[in-house]
Amino acid sequence: MDTLLDFIEKVVGAKNILRGEDVRARPADWITKEPCLALALVRPASADQLSQVMALCYEADQPVVTHGGLTGLVRGAVAASNELVISLERMTEIESVDPVGGTLTVQAGVPLQIVQEAAEQIGMQFALDLGARGSCTIGGNIATNAGGIRVIRYGMMRDQVLGLEVVLADGSVVSSMNNMLKNNAGYDLKHMFIGSEGTLGIVTRAVLKLQPQQSASQTALVACDSFESLVGLLQHMRQTLGGELGAFEVMWRSYYALLTKESGRHNAPLDTDAPFYVLIESLGNDQAETAQRFEQAITSAFEKELLSDAVVANSDTQRDRLWAIREDIEGLSELIAPRFVFDISLPIVDMDTYVNELEVSVRKIWPDAKVVVFGHLGDGNLHVSISTGDSNEETRIKIESLVYKPLQEIGGSISAEHGIGLKKKDHLSISRNPGEIALMMRLKEAMDPKGLLNRGKVLPNKN
Amino acid sequence: MDTLLDFIEKVVGAKNILRGEDVRARPADWITKEPCLALALVRPASADQLSQVMALCYEADQPVVTHGGLTGLVRGAVAASNELVISLERMTEIESVDPVGGTLTVQAGVPLQIVQEAAEQIGMQFALDLGARGSCTIGGNIATNAGGIRVIRYGMMRDQVLGLEVVLADGSVVSSMNNMLKNNAGYDLKHMFIGSEGTLGIVTRAVLKLQPQQSASQTALVACDSFESLVGLLQHMRQTLGGELGAFEVMWRSYYALLTKESGRHNAPLDTDAPFYVLIESLGNDQAETAQRFEQAITSAFEKELLSDAVVANSDTQRDRLWAIREDIEGLSELIAPRFVFDISLPIVDMDTYVNELEVSVRKIWPDAKVVVFGHLGDGNLHVSISTGDSNEETRIKIESLVYKPLQEIGGSISAEHGIGLKKKDHLSISRNPGEIALMMRLKEAMDPKGLLNRGKVLPNKN
Repeated sequence: MDTLLDFIEKVVGAKNILRGEDVRARPADWITKEPCLALALVRPASADQLSQVMALCYEADQPVVTHGGLTGLVRGAVAASNELVISLERMTEIESVDPVGGTLTVQAGVPLQIVQEAAEQIGMQFALDLGARGSCTIGGNIATNAGGIRVIRYGMMRDQVLGLEVVLADGSVVSSMNNMLKNNAGYDLKHMFIGSEGTLGIVTRAVLKLQPQQSASQTALVACDSFESLVGLLQHMRQTLGGELGAFEVMWRSYYALLTKESGRHNAPLDTDAPFYVLIESLGNDQAETAQRFEQAITSAFEKELLSDAVVANSDTQRDRLWAIREDIEGLSELIAPRFVFDISLPIVDMDTYVNELEVSVRKIWPDAKVVVFGHLGDGNLHVSISTGDSNEETRIKIESLVYKPLQEIGGSISAEHGIGLKKKDHLSISRNPGEIALMMRLKEAMDPKGLLNRGKVLPNKN
Repeated sequence: MDTLLDFIEKVVGAKNILRGEDVRARPADWITKEPCLALALVRPASADQLSQVMALCYEADQPVVTHGGLTGLVRGAVAASNELVISLERMTEIESVDPVGGTLTVQAGVPLQIVQEAAEQIGMQFALDLGARGSCTIGGNIATNAGGIRVIRYGMMRDQVLGLEVVLADGSVVSSMNNMLKNNAGYDLKHMFIGSEGTLGIVTRAVLKLQPQQSASQTALVACDSFESLVGLLQHMRQTLGGELGAFEVMWRSYYALLTKESGRHNAPLDTDAPFYVLIESLGNDQAETAQRFEQAITSAFEKELLSDAVVANSDTQRDRLWAIREDIEGLSELIAPRFVFDISLPIVDMDTYVNELEVSVRKIWPDAKVVVFGHLGDGNLHVSISTGDSNEETRIKIESLVYKPLQEIGGSISAEHGIGLKKKDHLSISRNPGEIALMMRLKEAMDPKGLLNRGKVLPNKN
């Protein structure tokens, strides 16, 4: 094996191939903080270096795992001791900026926040946003088709990418750096790689699409008396705010009451006796106009009895306080540790029944269990936390079954935005049928016949 | 060969397999109206029937061409005499409507306009729109990733599709009928088929995403004194109208003057001496508010000297008259017949120089040639018509070279929204590099190893 690493060292230089303790000193996963077990960690400076590294790996049948910011939630970047880690940490250049076309061309290792800031500097915005913005990288956002809090307005990472450069398993570089909004000249190859979690190719560069900046915003927290009115409220807000609706984040009472009154972590801006709470945000360009529209939308929702109570933020501080309740995942973790966490999507019409029945089925086994729910309602995406008081394997298997089985009947997804990785791999067939999985495996076989890229992740093992 | 057709007849019934003169009576192409030369035309009633038909074709190595509404512009549906046509004309059902999730589930043969009307009936809209709406089908829109006049606001057909059902070359059915906005459970297979022009699979059903209805609109025709101010105007409108900007259609003077003063086909709402004219439309929900915003946006553009003249439509009739100029492709065809037509995209910053240099290079050979340009500026998409007075093959080849060669240097596309089909196949390498084409061919090989689906279209022939 040393021969391969020696050849790789000649490509990237001695400083850029870590072995032994230097690898162990790196975490394999940001949640467990377990040490990285990989054979070695290689830090190419360019697609060209990576191409040479992959050509060597291909010849030696050496499997690899790609590392971005390591903020994933499905163990998609965990490497085994016979695997080589490719880290894109040296590929952090913002290569070019086109204010007229509204694009940024970047290397894959650039953190999301740096991209957001670069967009702001030319008076535009990069529309993907999520809590891990400071650490996660553009390459990782692409590989996992990241979601976050602006999907209702701007779509997922897939919608922010115009072009890609990818290194394939055999080391060949495919540069598909399209910078146009419309290009129907042959297959749109980028979509094959976006969301493939590093199993079909390694993204090295991207052309990103920017959006106009939104200088005005309005935020409210409202209470809803029933799921029916909650859905009516979503439709009402979509209709009245149109393109300005920027967030519609729902907290079930289980979440809202826990994070406010029950724990005292946050003041409760509204009483905790309603079944649903929604954080609504509009994004516009003119503060007075945006505020007026928003107020009208809230007032008319009141009149239609789509909401029972509301507080509108009248300062940035108030806005931040409202968001702090929704985003206090750290608090949630502390309050109901240990917990099992799920990221599911399902048709909105099925949500209320699904959550109610889940609570019943969980409490039938663990009468004191906590089922805490919040999510991006407009996207059909819920984050469900379940705490039974223990975290052992048997409980995990039972809970997963209670969460996933009804999803299969509804046609829901076991992963709305986090991906499959290793963690959900055994459950893929809940959300995808045998025909779909066979087609995915056919694609994987065509793109990576030796199975070198993120081996054993996402798809079932070949027999 | 008769044996295969007999077996197919048993699947679809005698009435649903046309042969001989019945096939010849059908057009192969809506522009040339030439007769369809195919061996036979098969009209399956369902994905199940199509699956059986394709399994028979696969066994017999029988190539097929799929027909939707036959409104394509790149000869993508033309069948040779040894090919079988699969027509989806009997698969026209709207299967289900979900007003809460905002989705429609339809068979692939449904015409676009029927889908638009079904969406309107539940108070929503289907956002794809183009001139051929009455004839083109959803399956064809998907296969070609159709564009049209609302791309600047809602994206292309790709952005309107949540799930697909596809019959593969070997007859297997892949049902990937996702109806959720977010689903990261494994590869997003639909994107492989969208825009693949019938070469990777035959789309039989789809889940379509709907948008809120926009009840208010405002339309203006404005004149710009320079390309610089035109680009400034686009940015200004994006910034001030935000999500309400619904169209930004530019006509070069060559187009606007020809269709108005020079031909007398339309009254000229503005003088014809400016180099650029733009049809701007905003879409909102409140007529008074939308009108006020629009007026402010136009007024402030005036003050910034981003436009030199403007007329705002104050009735539906006036609006229709403005759009009639932009959409009079029939008039254009008559006025400068014969003409060579191109559908290109390129970075906006390069457009002005590109068009100017194209005019110079064309007139160097044909001093009296007409170069007429209009397009979807915000999308980077131009439609270029060139008339030299003749339509012979030699001229065509020269003109194609003048149009495409500079595009290659800029990194533009030879097809923004029409696709490649047969017509542009030999030029694919202008817009896509050898690595990209090799990857496309690898995909084609994996999905359709016998090359039965729309053989010889889009990609170079093997060897």
